[in-house]
Amino acid sequence: MITVNIIGLGNVGSHICKALIKANNVSVKQCLVKTKKNYLFLSENTELIDDITLLKPADITVIAIPDDAIKEVSNKIPYSDNIVMHTSGSVGIHDLNAKHKRAVFYPLQTFSTNSEIEFKDVPICVEAIDKEVYKTVVDMAESLGSTTHKIYTQQRQKLHLAAVFVNNFTNQLYRIAHELVDADHISFDILKPLIQETARKVQDTSPYAAQTGPAVRNDKKTIRKHLKQLDSQEHKLIYEILTKAIQKTHGKKL
Amino acid sequence: MITVNIIGLGNVGSHICKALIKANNVSVKQCLVKTKKNYLFLSENTELIDDITLLKPADITVIAIPDDAIKEVSNKIPYSDNIVMHTSGSVGIHDLNAKHKRAVFYPLQTFSTNSEIEFKDVPICVEAIDKEVYKTVVDMAESLGSTTHKIYTQQRQKLHLAAVFVNNFTNQLYRIAHELVDADHISFDILKPLIQETARKVQDTSPYAAQTGPAVRNDKKTIRKHLKQLDSQEHKLIYEILTKAIQKTHGKKL
Repeated sequence: MITVNIIGLGNVGSHICKALIKANNVSVKQCLVKTKKNYLFLSENTELIDDITLLKPADITVIAIPDDAIKEVSNKIPYSDNIVMHTSGSVGIHDLNAKHKRAVFYPLQTFSTNSEIEFKDVPICVEAIDKEVYKTVVDMAESLGSTTHKIYTQQRQKLHLAAVFVNNFTNQLYRIAHELVDADHISFDILKPLIQETARKVQDTSPYAAQTGPAVRNDKKTIRKHLKQLDSQEHKLIYEILTKAIQKTHGKKL
Repeated sequence: MITVNIIGLGNVGSHICKALIKANNVSVKQCLVKTKKNYLFLSENTELIDDITLLKPADITVIAIPDDAIKEVSNKIPYSDNIVMHTSGSVGIHDLNAKHKRAVFYPLQTFSTNSEIEFKDVPICVEAIDKEVYKTVVDMAESLGSTTHKIYTQQRQKLHLAAVFVNNFTNQLYRIAHELVDADHISFDILKPLIQETARKVQDTSPYAAQTGPAVRNDKKTIRKHLKQLDSQEHKLIYEILTKAIQKTHGKKL
């Protein structure tokens, strides 16, 4: 049985907490939050606290709070020599106080409060200060059904950046498309199967091979037509830059 | 039984042809190609021809060829008063010769020669010169299991433009992410669940509500860090423009 404390029950913290409570060989002992409220997913075996000095040692302490606060909170944890890990994509492992057995547990997935996430679909990027710590963290991840990857700080920061491209920026392209069709009273629903298939396609085909459309074909007539249809200067700019990017890289295989 | 001829067996034409051959109440009579080769998916009831003058009347003739050639080919079809429809997102219905019962059958999906497409996941945008023609085209689409949408030329052109954003441009963001992780010897596979979930999320959540990340949080420190990690000027520019776009629109609900 691995005992776990969780600091922070925001988006990531609460998803990890819910999953750990369901896991067989894990016991969530304490959850530390800024302000106590009724968290329906907490089991009766878990103590909810709002004062860091009340934390009692556990095998693993998960810090799931904003990047800027991680260092300070790791200093304030009132015990040492146990595993303390953060869940951030961009904070280094050495930002954690050296009195702890330090580790990083970065779930590469988008979480939202409304929708449930199956942790078996969440790759966990693990970094740890030594082999023994690494093994314990991987054990915990595996008890959630997740696959783990040994990823060092620099690699993790690169993954975090890449995630911004495939998640935040992609989502913004969805939003722009939504605005475009709204203007002509067309339902965004019509685009949803294409959105799904575009993501599905690169699960087994490289984005290099998956590319189609006017940019790759260098179909100048359609590109001109499209630019004319865009009212917003910003949308025109995005269209031009991404069209250029496609044309520039298309000869180059991944 | 609806009889169908297909002009062009490229990406779109061959997918439509395969699906129509499997459909119950449709018979594919002739397929016209530039150069005959062995198309394994053709049934023995279908004649493969490479000369447009050999085409014999069918209830519906599907033109699935590059945009620039549609008008001319529609002129050359050696019969009239039957339904002739093209499959293009950007060509108008009136580009088809008026001797035909004109229609448009625009499948809003990405096709690739390797992967099979279930037509039940393909929304078909239908436009037709009159109600009777519309009904026959919808019947054919429904025999493939597809849902249809009445979409006029201007709307279709807007959808085609929106499709470039959610497909071609999104795929380019996947490609950039692939390049970024490659440079640090990280497998692109780690990003695949996030890519899937990003697309899945907007199936039932608006992209407005789905947005997360440093741009929305106005997390300047992370944004600066990310820009520093990008070697390519082009990637920096894409990062900056899409970050600005997110920040500019985020207050505005869809």
